[in-house]
Amino acid sequence: MAFNPVELIIKKRSGKELTKDELQYFVTSYIKNEIPDYQMSALLMAIFYQKMKIKEIQTLTKVYIDSGKIIKFPKAYHTVDKHSTGGVGDKISIMLAPIVSACGGTIPMISGRGLGHTGGTLDKLESIPGFRTNFSDKEFTKIIEKVGFSIISQSDELVPADRSIYALRDVTGTVESLPLITASIMSKKIAEGAQNLVIDLKIGSGAFIKDIPTGKELAEMLIKTGKKFGQRVSVLYSNMNSPLGFNIGNALEIKECVEYLQGKEIEDIDILTKALAREMLLISKVTKTKEEAAEKIEKAISSGKALDCLRSFIKVQKGDPAICDDTSLLPQAKFKIPVVADRSGWVQSINSQKIGYALIEIGAGRKTLDSKLDYASGAQLYKKVGDKIDKGEELGYIFCNKKNDGNNIISKILDSYVVEDKITKKESLILGSLT
Amino acid sequence: MAFNPVELIIKKRSGKELTKDELQYFVTSYIKNEIPDYQMSALLMAIFYQKMKIKEIQTLTKVYIDSGKIIKFPKAYHTVDKHSTGGVGDKISIMLAPIVSACGGTIPMISGRGLGHTGGTLDKLESIPGFRTNFSDKEFTKIIEKVGFSIISQSDELVPADRSIYALRDVTGTVESLPLITASIMSKKIAEGAQNLVIDLKIGSGAFIKDIPTGKELAEMLIKTGKKFGQRVSVLYSNMNSPLGFNIGNALEIKECVEYLQGKEIEDIDILTKALAREMLLISKVTKTKEEAAEKIEKAISSGKALDCLRSFIKVQKGDPAICDDTSLLPQAKFKIPVVADRSGWVQSINSQKIGYALIEIGAGRKTLDSKLDYASGAQLYKKVGDKIDKGEELGYIFCNKKNDGNNIISKILDSYVVEDKITKKESLILGSLT
Repeated sequence: MAFNPVELIIKKRSGKELTKDELQYFVTSYIKNEIPDYQMSALLMAIFYQKMKIKEIQTLTKVYIDSGKIIKFPKAYHTVDKHSTGGVGDKISIMLAPIVSACGGTIPMISGRGLGHTGGTLDKLESIPGFRTNFSDKEFTKIIEKVGFSIISQSDELVPADRSIYALRDVTGTVESLPLITASIMSKKIAEGAQNLVIDLKIGSGAFIKDIPTGKELAEMLIKTGKKFGQRVSVLYSNMNSPLGFNIGNALEIKECVEYLQGKEIEDIDILTKALAREMLLISKVTKTKEEAAEKIEKAISSGKALDCLRSFIKVQKGDPAICDDTSLLPQAKFKIPVVADRSGWVQSINSQKIGYALIEIGAGRKTLDSKLDYASGAQLYKKVGDKIDKGEELGYIFCNKKNDGNNIISKILDSYVVEDKITKKESLILGSLT
Repeated sequence: MAFNPVELIIKKRSGKELTKDELQYFVTSYIKNEIPDYQMSALLMAIFYQKMKIKEIQTLTKVYIDSGKIIKFPKAYHTVDKHSTGGVGDKISIMLAPIVSACGGTIPMISGRGLGHTGGTLDKLESIPGFRTNFSDKEFTKIIEKVGFSIISQSDELVPADRSIYALRDVTGTVESLPLITASIMSKKIAEGAQNLVIDLKIGSGAFIKDIPTGKELAEMLIKTGKKFGQRVSVLYSNMNSPLGFNIGNALEIKECVEYLQGKEIEDIDILTKALAREMLLISKVTKTKEEAAEKIEKAISSGKALDCLRSFIKVQKGDPAICDDTSLLPQAKFKIPVVADRSGWVQSINSQKIGYALIEIGAGRKTLDSKLDYASGAQLYKKVGDKIDKGEELGYIFCNKKNDGNNIISKILDSYVVEDKITKKESLILGSLT
């Protein structure tokens, strides 16, 4: 069916709902280059303001999915995936997938690269020498059958509509739209074959979602959209006011993941990883109760089974599994520059975004999609909100290969900490959930 | 100064004001193809929703003007122009300019072509054999010095920013934005050298502006923007519920203009033309009082001086002035098909837009910018809101060169009239004014 694109833009602009045929027409014509970027961006901005009813969101998700291939796993697999709305130092997937797999879960994970202040799971994994993320659907399925999980990049054939439209949203100020976010996340997570999905929805000053009510609005869209396609979705709200763990930067984060699975205590990572793992085991019916799930998870880590799973996964995806025993095999930075506190007090808040952007300058993240990463660069930062700082104390280190660049960002890192004389409470990491 | 276009889009999207430097950067980069269409259309849609403060509108107007050449006339000329926000059968300029000129006014009029359901003054004039509208600035000034007025097309050098952005607005559903409309109208009317400006702001179901409060909002933007550039602006609100005059179609409208200047009584044209002419004479200080203006206007028409002015103007712009004495020299349609009333009653309302679109199908208007016009085609329609109709009565005629096409639109023309059994009041043509 043919429509007049301008009439459809004006219809949405006026706050009316677009029908299935209209959305189908607009998106598929756009993909075929029959509707130009400037009309799509006008529609996206109209959607930003007028929002979408749940039925429209479900339809848009369907149109996205139908634009490409769909991967399917047998029902008996009870596949389960996790999606995070993104945070600085968020390396959770790299521990979570081996743990859940060690507990009997099956995880088909199609992940992304980093852009802006947050890193991407694929970039982190690619800091492992030899590691590959570009596998065909068939290879993806085979790896999952062999290891229990796989983390690969999105092929050109999976939800191409979302890829094109996401790239356009990124450059037209239309990223922050709950309906568009929902269709983007859900289309990929449904097309990749996940029958169950746990979402780590970050809330806080550093996250796109600033408060619980907005988080709940998004959570409901995600859950209802999943349901429409037979996917069970559970949402965990987590605090995003501090970077996760101590290490930020690609190879440094892999190191931290290995150390955690080796038994090292890292409080925030421990809480969040286990909470998400429990939810994944429950929702995919691998375990029946929270207690059973918690027990299995503890055993998977303490027995070394989760680390074994990470080892097998790295091996089958052509990386060097020896990094699981000797993290010095990961890329190492030439310089380690101490970050020294310039005043005493308690950490009131941390601007994670500012830290993320500072680290881009030493190559830990990308400015544009073409930027080259320096896998070894990054930072170790020990202080969290509520911690006490003494003037002259080492808050952590900057790791870099160009000393000048490293020195240049010290003040930016220090400025990211709001330090005052009054004692502050530590923050809760898990803020709630919705199923 | 360089900015990040996405940040500027998000700034406007969030309801903040853009600074002079920011607007300047966005528009000039767009004109230089350094900012793509899709970012401009996202910004335009954000402006549609967030509107603009008067200072922003004035800045945008300035940025538009600065994108091209400016025409200037000596202060002593007291140049005055009229702009209409567009209506079906709106041929007023073609009578108004000769009348005001005959009264001593100086009118530098840069006009547009028709697109959609409303016709363009240039198209109407070009139906006169030989008539030209493409003159250089110098020729434009010379014609005005000689005849007192000129009506030409916008050169590539006059406000190029508006031309590009208007074309984009047309295809992205962002035409109906009062701030963007203001900057578009005012930049052209200031750059063409009009020191005074009267605006015929159409209000009604068939117009873009549906009610007086919205009209007043636009009028205030226009007046305040003019003031900023030393241009006096006066706004007349006029009713746009019926087509203007009896004739619609390019050559048919020229014929009607000539007939009016020859002394024929056409009520609505008479009221509107004289009201606008009075306002133009007053605002440009050619006359001191309304009464003096009214007297001059009556004389200009009854003495034949206004028709003489039209004759000189047509001649100097290379058209055949003999059409002022013999309108059969204008293009004539092969067929004249009666439109016969299919029921009795009183005309409650007329859908002018529907009539405009129907006449496009016989070549009286353009579907796209490339469409060829059939100058001879159009319609004569005698009935106005409040008139009585008897079943079987001829409401008017369709003029066309393809009989089938003409027959096909009869029902559409008839459907444009809402006819009911109850008596309705005639409508006032002038609804108010703001200076």
